[in-house]
Amino acid sequence: VARESQIVLGLDPDPARLWPEAVDGGTGHGPAAERAAAAVTAHCRAVIDAAGPACVAVKPQLACFERLGAPGWVALAAVAGHARDAGLLVLADGKRGDIDVSAAAYGQALVGSTPTPFGAVAGLGADAFTANPYMGIDTLTVLTDAARRAAAGVFVLVRTSNPGAADVEDLALESGGRLWERVAAIVNDLATADEGPLSDIGAVVGATAPEHVARMRELMPRSTFLLPGIGAQGGRVEDLAPAFAPGRAGGLVTASRSIVLAHEASGSSPAGAARAEAERLRAAAWAL
Amino acid sequence: VARESQIVLGLDPDPARLWPEAVDGGTGHGPAAERAAAAVTAHCRAVIDAAGPACVAVKPQLACFERLGAPGWVALAAVAGHARDAGLLVLADGKRGDIDVSAAAYGQALVGSTPTPFGAVAGLGADAFTANPYMGIDTLTVLTDAARRAAAGVFVLVRTSNPGAADVEDLALESGGRLWERVAAIVNDLATADEGPLSDIGAVVGATAPEHVARMRELMPRSTFLLPGIGAQGGRVEDLAPAFAPGRAGGLVTASRSIVLAHEASGSSPAGAARAEAERLRAAAWAL
Repeated sequence: VARESQIVLGLDPDPARLWPEAVDGGTGHGPAAERAAAAVTAHCRAVIDAAGPACVAVKPQLACFERLGAPGWVALAAVAGHARDAGLLVLADGKRGDIDVSAAAYGQALVGSTPTPFGAVAGLGADAFTANPYMGIDTLTVLTDAARRAAAGVFVLVRTSNPGAADVEDLALESGGRLWERVAAIVNDLATADEGPLSDIGAVVGATAPEHVARMRELMPRSTFLLPGIGAQGGRVEDLAPAFAPGRAGGLVTASRSIVLAHEASGSSPAGAARAEAERLRAAAWAL
Repeated sequence: VARESQIVLGLDPDPARLWPEAVDGGTGHGPAAERAAAAVTAHCRAVIDAAGPACVAVKPQLACFERLGAPGWVALAAVAGHARDAGLLVLADGKRGDIDVSAAAYGQALVGSTPTPFGAVAGLGADAFTANPYMGIDTLTVLTDAARRAAAGVFVLVRTSNPGAADVEDLALESGGRLWERVAAIVNDLATADEGPLSDIGAVVGATAPEHVARMRELMPRSTFLLPGIGAQGGRVEDLAPAFAPGRAGGLVTASRSIVLAHEASGSSPAGAARAEAERLRAAAWAL
């Protein structure tokens, strides 16, 4: 917030679609996975250098790093470190959810550390991460407890921006309301365990359905919303403003391809186009 | 099935609770993460050598490897390779779920490969993986398509074995039935796109509620069930038999701590106790 931005820079690097400067430089002659991971690291560093000053956080999509195996995990740690050095928060987007000991292990991986006979092994050190609520409250509380111990945040999937959100999240319940409204109530229960006007337990709320965002705000008055779906997925920042009147909890707008691939439409340099698009979004979203 | 076993050996190694022989041997003097990952690898190899002959597959819990960072990913690949060499299937338990490009990246990570300017990077090469249905059918079909291209399987979370399953999965729908029954119908729709009597799209069905298992079988007649919750979580193989009458699709019983920590109750060697418990489960579950 001190940066006067509510833009979260999504990092979902596709090794087949990196900025040319990242592919050309410093990749050496090792195995393909290591060369690709080095190029992904260079690409994400360049994106952060270009667009980061207009953003408050980066959101690495863990799948995009995992597909490069161990070198991908090295790249993820390097990119997270670069973002932190640039003064940005790191929001690990893995949408994890699992039972007791497995959820605890995800907490150790993302925001904690793991005791071993050889000393503690530090995790990614993220400032926040996304979580999936399907398996219930006991699976979420293990994650939120881990986050609180690390002074980190959790964004729980509530109503996402994809067409398939209609298949499960939108199902009408016998007790009234939709499934996502019930999940929003669960998130709010977790959030109200905090002190203060804002909770560290937020919600992922697709920006492609602005009418839902207002209802979400009623159900989760103290949660920060993470709003994917702007840009490439068709959502518009301007449509979201009513849910974020002054004095209410805020929203973070995530944008990935619309920033990173802005040069494909504009014809200018990747870095210049990314910076311009991030600045445009920053100005548009500052009211949220 | 040629191994005459329906036991899936869960590998969720806790670095603070490894078999002593794994901690003592071959860990060198590197950073804690690398030493812990080497010990985890040695532990999982020993568990596979001891209990593997009574099992049909291993199920590494990805969280337990991710918490060791890049060395953990190296350990995961080594353990998967050791299991394959022992003739076991590899079922990657990560419960992933995400939209289009991200789901595709998970498919590349688990069962596919990733095109890069430096050549294709192979993923984990799993024979199957678990998936989370919360975000809807479009997110599942990206994963099932990736699995089919690799001749691999997917087990979709339907009704899990934890107490929190009551919070979301068990919600009653306005249209009738519970949420998990609707998800079961979605899984069956995906499964019937296959030829043949058995589908490559299975379901995760907690073994702690045997009365649900019979209903699941009605809703998903062609899907293999992955049945966690035996042993440490209180489920009993004997209670599940009615859902697996001859001529119906089968079930795979997963067991982790009840096999790996069997020596803590029996007082015998870790390997001997694990082998004995796996053999006991194999015999009990062969009817499923």
